[in-house]
Order: sequence, then C-alpha cells, then structure tokens
Amino acid sequence: MTGHLSAKPLVLVILTVLALGSVLAMHPSATVAASVDGVLKLMPVPASVTAREGRFRIDEGLTIASPGPQTGRAFRAAARFMSRLAGRTGLFLKQDFLTGQKPDGEGGILYNFDKTGTLLPNEDESYSLSVDTAKVALSARTDLGILRGLETLLQLLSADETGYYFPCIDIADQPRFTWRGLLIDVGRHFQPVDVIKRNLDAMAAVKMNVFHWHLTEDQGFRVESKVFPKLHQLGSDGMFYTQAQIRDVIEYAADRGIRVMPEFDIPGHSTSWFAAYPEFSSAPGTYGIERKFGVFGQAFNPADERIYPFFDAFLKEMSTLFPDPYLHIGGDEVEGHQWDANPAIQAFKKKNGLADNGALQAYFNKRLLKILTKYGKKMVGWDEVFQPGLPNDIVIHSWRGPKALVEAAQKGYQGILSNGYYIDLCQPAEAHYLNDPLPPDSPLDDRQKALVLGGEATMWSEIVTPETIDSRIWPRTAAIAERLWSPASVTNVDDMYRRLGFVSVELEELGLLHLKNPDMLLRRLAGDPRIEPLQVLAETVEPLKNYLRHGQAAYTSLSPFTRFVDACAPESLAARSFRKKVDQFLAGKDPILGREIGATLAFWKANHVRVLPIVAASPALREIEPLSLGLARACEVGLEALDGLTKGQSQSAVWAEAKGKILAEAANPAAHAELAVISAVTKLVAACAGPVK
Amino acid sequence: MTGHLSAKPLVLVILTVLALGSVLAMHPSATVAASVDGVLKLMPVPASVTAREGRFRIDEGLTIASPGPQTGRAFRAAARFMSRLAGRTGLFLKQDFLTGQKPDGEGGILYNFDKTGTLLPNEDESYSLSVDTAKVALSARTDLGILRGLETLLQLLSADETGYYFPCIDIADQPRFTWRGLLIDVGRHFQPVDVIKRNLDAMAAVKMNVFHWHLTEDQGFRVESKVFPKLHQLGSDGMFYTQAQIRDVIEYAADRGIRVMPEFDIPGHSTSWFAAYPEFSSAPGTYGIERKFGVFGQAFNPADERIYPFFDAFLKEMSTLFPDPYLHIGGDEVEGHQWDANPAIQAFKKKNGLADNGALQAYFNKRLLKILTKYGKKMVGWDEVFQPGLPNDIVIHSWRGPKALVEAAQKGYQGILSNGYYIDLCQPAEAHYLNDPLPPDSPLDDRQKALVLGGEATMWSEIVTPETIDSRIWPRTAAIAERLWSPASVTNVDDMYRRLGFVSVELEELGLLHLKNPDMLLRRLAGDPRIEPLQVLAETVEPLKNYLRHGQAAYTSLSPFTRFVDACAPESLAARSFRKKVDQFLAGKDPILGREIGATLAFWKANHVRVLPIVAASPALREIEPLSLGLARACEVGLEALDGLTKGQSQSAVWAEAKGKILAEAANPAAHAELAVISAVTKLVAACAGPVK
Repeated sequence: MTGHLSAKPLVLVILTVLALGSVLAMHPSATVAASVDGVLKLMPVPASVTAREGRFRIDEGLTIASPGPQTGRAFRAAARFMSRLAGRTGLFLKQDFLTGQKPDGEGGILYNFDKTGTLLPNEDESYSLSVDTAKVALSARTDLGILRGLETLLQLLSADETGYYFPCIDIADQPRFTWRGLLIDVGRHFQPVDVIKRNLDAMAAVKMNVFHWHLTEDQGFRVESKVFPKLHQLGSDGMFYTQAQIRDVIEYAADRGIRVMPEFDIPGHSTSWFAAYPEFSSAPGTYGIERKFGVFGQAFNPADERIYPFFDAFLKEMSTLFPDPYLHIGGDEVEGHQWDANPAIQAFKKKNGLADNGALQAYFNKRLLKILTKYGKKMVGWDEVFQPGLPNDIVIHSWRGPKALVEAAQKGYQGILSNGYYIDLCQPAEAHYLNDPLPPDSPLDDRQKALVLGGEATMWSEIVTPETIDSRIWPRTAAIAERLWSPASVTNVDDMYRRLGFVSVELEELGLLHLKNPDMLLRRLAGDPRIEPLQVLAETVEPLKNYLRHGQAAYTSLSPFTRFVDACAPESLAARSFRKKVDQFLAGKDPILGREIGATLAFWKANHVRVLPIVAASPALREIEPLSLGLARACEVGLEALDGLTKGQSQSAVWAEAKGKILAEAANPAAHAELAVISAVTKLVAACAGPVK
Repeated sequence: MTGHLSAKPLVLVILTVLALGSVLAMHPSATVAASVDGVLKLMPVPASVTAREGRFRIDEGLTIASPGPQTGRAFRAAARFMSRLAGRTGLFLKQDFLTGQKPDGEGGILYNFDKTGTLLPNEDESYSLSVDTAKVALSARTDLGILRGLETLLQLLSADETGYYFPCIDIADQPRFTWRGLLIDVGRHFQPVDVIKRNLDAMAAVKMNVFHWHLTEDQGFRVESKVFPKLHQLGSDGMFYTQAQIRDVIEYAADRGIRVMPEFDIPGHSTSWFAAYPEFSSAPGTYGIERKFGVFGQAFNPADERIYPFFDAFLKEMSTLFPDPYLHIGGDEVEGHQWDANPAIQAFKKKNGLADNGALQAYFNKRLLKILTKYGKKMVGWDEVFQPGLPNDIVIHSWRGPKALVEAAQKGYQGILSNGYYIDLCQPAEAHYLNDPLPPDSPLDDRQKALVLGGEATMWSEIVTPETIDSRIWPRTAAIAERLWSPASVTNVDDMYRRLGFVSVELEELGLLHLKNPDMLLRRLAGDPRIEPLQVLAETVEPLKNYLRHGQAAYTSLSPFTRFVDACAPESLAARSFRKKVDQFLAGKDPILGREIGATLAFWKANHVRVLPIVAASPALREIEPLSLGLARACEVGLEALDGLTKGQSQSAVWAEAKGKILAEAANPAAHAELAVISAVTKLVAACAGPVK
C-alpha cells in the first residue's frame, strides 16, 4: 500500500545515493560512514537507511536469538540465515543452527516481533534493523518483518582485511506495494516441485510475497483432482502435482512469507480439460492435450447448465486445497470462435439478452463468482474479466496495458499489474525496472492509488523448461521485486545493475540454476567440457525478443529447448557494459577507454576461429556460425572505426555506408538469436564518418 | 556372474583396442570400419563389439518402437531416450515421446524383449544391439537388457559434416558381475530425494543396478517409522524420508532397473536411535544426535531381551516398506567399550559362553537373522558380521580388504567388495578402476568365484553435502561401474580417462551437479561472478586424501562445506594431463611438448597475481594464498628446470637441493587441500640435476 510511507517518522537516506559510491546525509542527524561507501549490495533498496561509523565483527561465536520460543517461522528463518552465513564465510559457527542451541555467553543478533503475521494483503511486513559494533537488533510487528529483515542483514555482509562484518547502520523498511508476485506457468511446460521450491527461496531473498501458480493451460492440467481425477489423468501426461505436493509447496511458501494463489484459466485456454470432459466444450468432439502454442478457439460452453455444478464441485475442492483467500480464474484470450459457431450458444445469448461474447463471458464469470463467494474466495481475473455488471470486490490483473489498471481503479476495483513485467519477452531488466504500477503521471487520486495493490512478474513457459526457467526468471525479476518494494524515487538504473550482479550470485546459494545451466547446455551441445569460445559468443548474444522466436520454428511443448539460444541470457550484460563504454568514449574520447574497447573488439573478433572447430564437431551448433562470423566482422568494422577515431581521422560516407551494410548483415537473427553489440559498433562507425555528401 | 561370458558365441573385439584409436580385428570375420575410429565413447565397455561400415542417419523422422504395448519400463526408458537424444542434437523429433505416437511411416529403432525382468541378483541384463544403415535393432531377454542397451545406443551418438548418426555396429553385451552398487550415506549428511533421484539416473547411465541406502548413523535416523515414530522424530532434526518418499524412490529406481537395498547399521553407529530409546543402549543415559564424526562407543545392548521384540517390529515394518530381498544390518566398527563396561553384559556373555565381543555380536546377529528370515529377507553385513556359526546364506560386504571376501568365498559365503571403492577418500579414478573383485591372481576356484557377486562404491558423507556430493561421486564412479560390468581384460587406464570425460558431460543432462557446483561455490566465496583465476588454481589442487582432511579442522555435521577445498575435484585432471606430458617429455625430449609444458607452467605461475585481489576481498579465501603462491613458486622452479633441459644444461646438486626445498614447501597442505602438480615438477628438477656429489 502506498500509504505506508507517510506515517513513518524515520530519517530517509535514499539509497540510490549510497549506491553511487558515497553516503550523502540527506538529514543533519545522519552520519556518513566511510565504511559503507560503495559496499552496500541491498536489493530491494530499503525505505530508509542511516549509515553509521563502525563494524559489527562476525566470528565463529556469532549467535542469533529471540526472547520468544525456539520454534516457528522466524526461528526457522534464523536457522537458514545462520546456515547461509556459514556457507558464505566458511565460518564454523558455534551455534547449532538446527536446534538454536548456543554456546556459552551472548552477543550477536537479537530479533523480536509482536505477533505471527497472516498471509493476507496489507499485512505488516515492516522491520527495523539496527547494527552497532556490539550487537544487531532486528525488530518487527510480525514475524514476516523478521523474515524480510534477515534477508537485508545477509545482504549487508561485508569484508575487510580483518574478516567479515556487518556495517553499523539503521534501517527502517517496509514495502511500497503489498502484492509482489511471480507467476509461473506450469501448464505449457511442467515444472517439478524442486523448481517451484527453489524459486520460492529466490522470491523470499528479494522480498516477494505472492506465488501465482498458473496451473491449467491448453497444454496441461497440472493439479490432482480427487473429485474429477480424469482431469489430471487425461490432461497432464502424468506430469501433475499431487495434492500432497501442493500442500507441501504451500507450507514451504508460507514458511517464507509467501502466499500461493492458484489460477485455473477458464473459460478459454482449456483444451487439456476437454481431454477428460469434451462434452463441456463449446464444440463437443475429441480433444487431446495441445502440443502447439498459440491462442486456440476452445472454450467451455457457458450455455451448458451442466458445467456449473462441475465447477462448483471442482472449485470447492480447490478452495479447500488452497488456503489463500484469492483464486485466479484466468479469463484471458477467449476468442469466441467456438461460441459463435454454436447455435445453442447463440440462442442462449439472445434469450438472456447478452449482446456480445464479452457479455457472455461476464455471465459465466458471475456464475463463477457466486461459487467462489460460497467457498470464501475472492475472484481475480485477467483484464478481460473487467466487464460491466461485476461487483467490485474482484481483482483485475492487467496484462494488456496500464490503462486497464487505471480504469479499474477509477471504477473502484483493485488491480495488480503484469503488463511491463512479462519476463518471457527477454527484455532487459531496465525496461521492467522503470515500469511503475503507479507512475508519477498517474491520473489516480490517493484513494484510487490505494486500489493498485502491486504487480507480478509473469513467467509464461512456452519456451522454458526446468533446465532453463531459472535463467529466464533471474536475476531480472529482482529488478521488478525492487520496483514493487522500494520507494518510487529509487530509479538509478546503473546502480540497479551493479546490485543485480551481487543478487545473482546470492541466488545461487538457494539452488537457482541461472548461472550454472547455460554452461551445461553448451557442454551438452559440444559433447565436451571445453566450451570457452562458446561462452564468449553466448555472452554477446541475446535470444530474439518478444515472441519473434516463435516465428523461427514450429515449437511445441515437446521440442528440445537445449540449443545455443537457450544458453544465452535474456539480457547480455557484456553487451550492456560495452555499449556504455562506447557511449562514454564517444562523449569524451578518453584514450584508456578507447584501448579497453579495442581490446574487447579484438578478443571477440579472434573468437571466431576458436568457435569454428567446435561447430564443425557438433551439427546442433552449426546454426551459430553466422552469429560468430557476424560478431567477428562487426568487431573488425568496430576496430577500423576506433582506429579512425583515435587518430582523429574522419571517414567518408561511402565507407560508412559499406560498413553499415556489414553491420546490418551481422544484425540479422540466426539460431533464433541476435548479436547484442551491433548498436554500439554502429555508433562508432557513425562517429567517425564524415558528413554525408 | 563370471560364468556369463563363456556361453556367448559372439565375436569379441576387445574395445580397449578400439579406444586407442583404431579398430583391430581380433577375429577374421570382424570388419574394421574407419567410421568408428577414435570415436566410440562407450562406458562401460561392452563385452563384445564388432564395428561395420556405414552410418545410420539420425533426423527428425527418427522413431522408436516395439512390437509390445506402449507401456511399461522399457517404453518409459525409450521415451527418456528420445527426449535425451533431442536434447543433445536439438532435433525436433516428430515422434511424440510422451505417448509414443509416431508420424506416418516407419524406420528407426526397434526394440524387443521376451519378458519383464525381476529385480534380483543374477537376473538377465544382457542385450544385443545391431545398427545398420537402415535400422537399429535392440533385443534382450528382459526389459532390463533394453534399458542397458538404450544407454549404450545413446553413447554411440556421433556426428560428421552431414549431421548426427549411429555408427553401424554389432554389440553383444552382458555384465561381468551381477551386483554393481553405489552406497549413499544419508545419515551423516542428509541427502534430499532429488539428490537420490539424480544419482539413480546417473547409475542407470553407467549400468549400475544396486542402490545401497545407508539410512541410519550416529548422526541421523533418516527413515520414517510409523511403528516407532520417535526414531525419526527425535533422531533426524526433521531431515528424514517419509514412507511415501521411500516408496517413490524405490519405484523410480525400479523403473531404471535398480534395486534398493536399505541399511540399518546396528548394533554400533546407532547414537541417533538412542535419542529416542536410550534404554536400549549398552550404557543407558541421555543421548542426542551426534554432531561430530568418528567411531563412537555407543551400541545396542544384546543382553537386553527387550531389544529383540523392538527389532522384530521395526524390521517387520521395514521389510514391508523395502521390497528388495536383501537387507543390510551394518554391523561394522562395534568397539565394545560400552559392552565391556556393562556388568550385566559381561554376565550375559559368561552365561551364554560368548568368549569375546565378536561372539556377542554374532549372537546378536543370529537373533536378527531369525527375525529377517521370518520376514523373507536375506541378511547382508559388513566384514565384522562374518563370525563362526552364522549360516551361509548371508552376504559379506567387505570394507576392510579383499582378504575377507576371499575367506568368505572359501567358506561358501557370498560377498561384495567395497574395499578399494571408497570414493570418499578422494583417490584417483585409476586406483578404483584397477581394483578387481576377482583379480587375475585370485586364489578362488570357479565355484568360489561365483560367490563374489560384485561390488559397491561407497559415498560416506562426513564431508559432503547436497551441494558437493555429485562431484565426490561422479565421474569417478563410472570407472567402478566399468570395472564391475566390463570384461576383466578391459584395463586401459588412459582410454578409461578419455571416455570418462565424455561420460562426465553426459551425466549433466541427467541433472548431476558435479561440473556446475564447483563454480558456484567459488562465486559464492568470491561474492562475484568473475572467478577465472580461482578456477585455474582449483584445477591444480586436490582435497587432502584418505581421512587427512579431518585432521585439519573439527568438522561436524553442521560445519560449512562451502570452502575452496569443496570446490576442488577429488582428482585433478589438469594435473594428471600435466604429469603425463612431463613423463613423455622426459622420455623423448620432444621440443613441442617442452613448449606446451612451458606454456602451462607460465600460465599457472602468472595466475598468482590474479588470485591475490580476489583473496584480499574474501576472508574465506585467505587460506588459499599459500596454495596459490606455492603453485607460482613451483612453476617458476619448473620453468628453470625446463629451460635447462631444453638447452641440454645439467644443474648442480646444490641447485637441485635448493629447488627441492621450494617444492617440498609448495607440497605442504593448505586450506585442507594440496597441489597436485608438484610430483611432475620434481621430476623435471631431478632430470636436469647432475649426479649428486
């Protein structure tokens, strides 16, 4: 909730300043401590930070304790904290972090909270953290605040010549938005429980609190139904979660302060349901699990009275299985072809005065809402459910654009934003980071703003598998987590990237595979452990963005997602760094920067001859030869331009045009991917080209 | 069983020859095909291979089929085969490998078997595989043979300029030993189900067939008992397998043709049991879960009649949970201090004429045997259970030496070997590889030899965690798998290492973390994704061998195993390669080799200055500075020696002594590890030193 910030009396030191390398006191009482200069790696940035002099030393005698009992969610989080701290520092901590048994003597971290937090929107997640040279005090109204504060404390871990320490600091923190979610689509590609659990750990590390479990799709029905077992038996290829596994995941999430909201996407996106119950579709016939991707016409038949007792029994079962008060009914992309083609549905619309398919879907939703209300659930749906006539205790989930969110809020509906947080589009972190659910120019008033609960990153899974999903979610989603937690004023993109690098390494300790698996995929393709030239190339390449990759091959849910493109990160940080250097160089012509750029270009150029023998031995890698050649040729052009710039020689327009052609060719997609460094080389060429004749 | 080989009429082409780079026909009818020269990567080497001309081309139309139904273990293995093949090749196979639905037209792999195999020793696992240009035929007596053959076929995957293919070949294969096991100790460090499952997949990839689940230890009782729930509730810190998980693992293993034999280690190694039932110990009192490592005195009290109904009820429960006919009762390392100190036990021994503690343990074992027999189980125990008076349908598991196995066989007992297969000792693969359960000089006759069922690699888990266990097991255990499967004559160490490199990459596709996690650990310690100098150093370092590491620190089950040493492979392949090059160079003084050695030495030497800033920023890495410095200094010495050798200059004994001191210092352990390249440098120094005065 945006109202959180206003009531806090604490000193605010906006951390974007800290992050730039020095702590500026924004308030006379804040002490600037050299000890935290350029060291803080906090992500998301807390609401308020006051740095102080001094260091709290960490040694093997470090203990963590609470006046309360050695049980419960905060205690387990404290145990995990100690284990992770030991893992990072190699210290043989004397406190037994399984049982909490401490060595003789006190001294260390003391945490304290008033009550157990509930897993509901608007629950208090605030905490205050005070580190001085002798002790660390973490306090919160709820144990959820303790969980959030422990993650902050772990990110404060620092080192100097003496050893590890926490810098002395005062932090007062609370989230800007109460709904900070990650959607994982397990319908298009099933993701086993261990994938879900490690991503829950990662969410907790960046203070996210809603796991949106997209459980049904055309390509799979992923939850065991004991009431209608044919649903998972015929709709999942055996790849579904048992109810015991679901309960286990919910418990695991709750232990990390994360709500689990299930989604059953209806009436469209429902082919897998019809494998079991074709009679409920709007065009009865034979249905199998869909293997292809796209928007299909299949939809439940709202005119068939039999579907309502079916959904009543099904949603009753699911309402018991999932304790969260919210249940997402999807409702997106119902194209209506089947409805239009069914005379009985047309007659039903006429009879009930339903002017169009939107009205028909609203009718369906109203019937569902009645069922959900009976079972104590609040309804959440995608944009399309926002139709006249629905009561305003439903939540609108905006995927098509921020406009829907604004309109919903203006009409008194709560909303959450996912437009701009579609991490499957392979956009840079920056794009998501600067996408604010409540931008400065929001037309909403304060009462309406309070209806915007937050947002969710969406991991749609057409082209991700358990092997690649982590690298598609992380670390970029940490930038979204920061947008949803930190003050609106925290918008320094460069510093976000600096901290993202540390968070990325931090996530590995939780079992995330985003940094490990790209190398594995390259080793598998090469059939060899030696892959360095492939790594060099992969670092300069990005998968085709948006949904362009789907145009390159007839992907299905059974296709291998083990190609070179799958080993390329959605965002090339090497390319980003290179682009920035080129911009800096062109602004000031610093010769040292010029030499660095030249060395990079020469290194990339020379990589091609090292790639060739690997490609020759691996047919699966042959598709990357144009990328590798393109990189070499682009770098050659870049070196030529750099040489001219360094010597102050301007080049002719004819030269620029010829080089432009080479670069245009190198910019062509290949292997479902594209080089991410061409724009920077193009700038070098443009800079040393003379005026066009 | 060793008798398998004799009845086979097939042509034998011993593959060690193949592997050396060319196929020599050992029999006039065998055709030598240039197509497989130096290409085969099979591990374990099959019993018989005949290479032929031609290639079976693999394209998207490849299908796999069987005349039998599209269900069952072989069908599921075929589906996994197709999925893995697609993953390696990037091919969009048209056959739906989830359901087996094929595109129009046939052509491809046909598998066929007579009956479903039972998971019992001596079951038929043989198969024959015939690849010609038009089709692949895989046939076996049982579906287990199909599983083994599919792994072989996948290892045959090859590539040329046209694309992927299987070389035309005839293989007739069966195991030399029927018991090819891996023990994982989940007592000292709990290993979650996903760790177990991925290791079962790895076992299947190298045709191992017994998972020995060491479920109880002083440090943990890891199986849910519904009869005595206090056992897992008080003995596991909550880290145990539920019975549902156990059944899931057993089913998973069975689907891969792997038996699951549980071990409940009694009467010693039992502290965790006494956390729940201190009254059953030989020195009643208060017991907690043991955190330290070692051999402790605690043991069940054989003189206490109450323990027998307890074990009866417990083993009845476990006999139902675990379907394997074998149950391992441990029985190792009962030191007897508690027995000696307990007057009631002393009186009991006297009363029953039990001369010593060995006799007392034999008494205990006989009582257990009676219980196990009642529940249809055969007893397996470590060496120590081999005491006079036990019936000879028990199986002796030899850990102390091959002598016990020989003695047991001579007395008519079956046995399995683990001595020499202790992979926790960080020995090179070669040492395990050349350790034969039935060496050429075995004193056993054929009937006795048949009693030697096979062997087991043992992963004792004092110093391994879920993060590091894969790198401690793999790929070295594949060498043991080959020893137990392949003909005794397959002993070419260099070729084993060549093939081990490919197997290592292959194992990654099954989720193994042995290649990925070392980098992760280094990133965590450095707090940074850039770790290349650390990788270079780690590649030249090995953990201290045998149990020397335990002398370096007071390790407990709660210690962090996240240090530099944990990121070092048990065997440095870079050092092995370097040693071999030095030996070759010293034998022939080939100047090209000399330059290669010089380049390597210079590279390693230069690494030190790159390591230093990383170490400075990370207190946890400071312990590696002596290793890094030692490497640099040793390489400097090596370069000096190489220079002398290249120029034909002999050095003085004084020089050699001075250099020897530097090398001796560099050989000192640091950070619980040691440099693996010192011996090779020492040889260089010795070679250019003149005769001692």
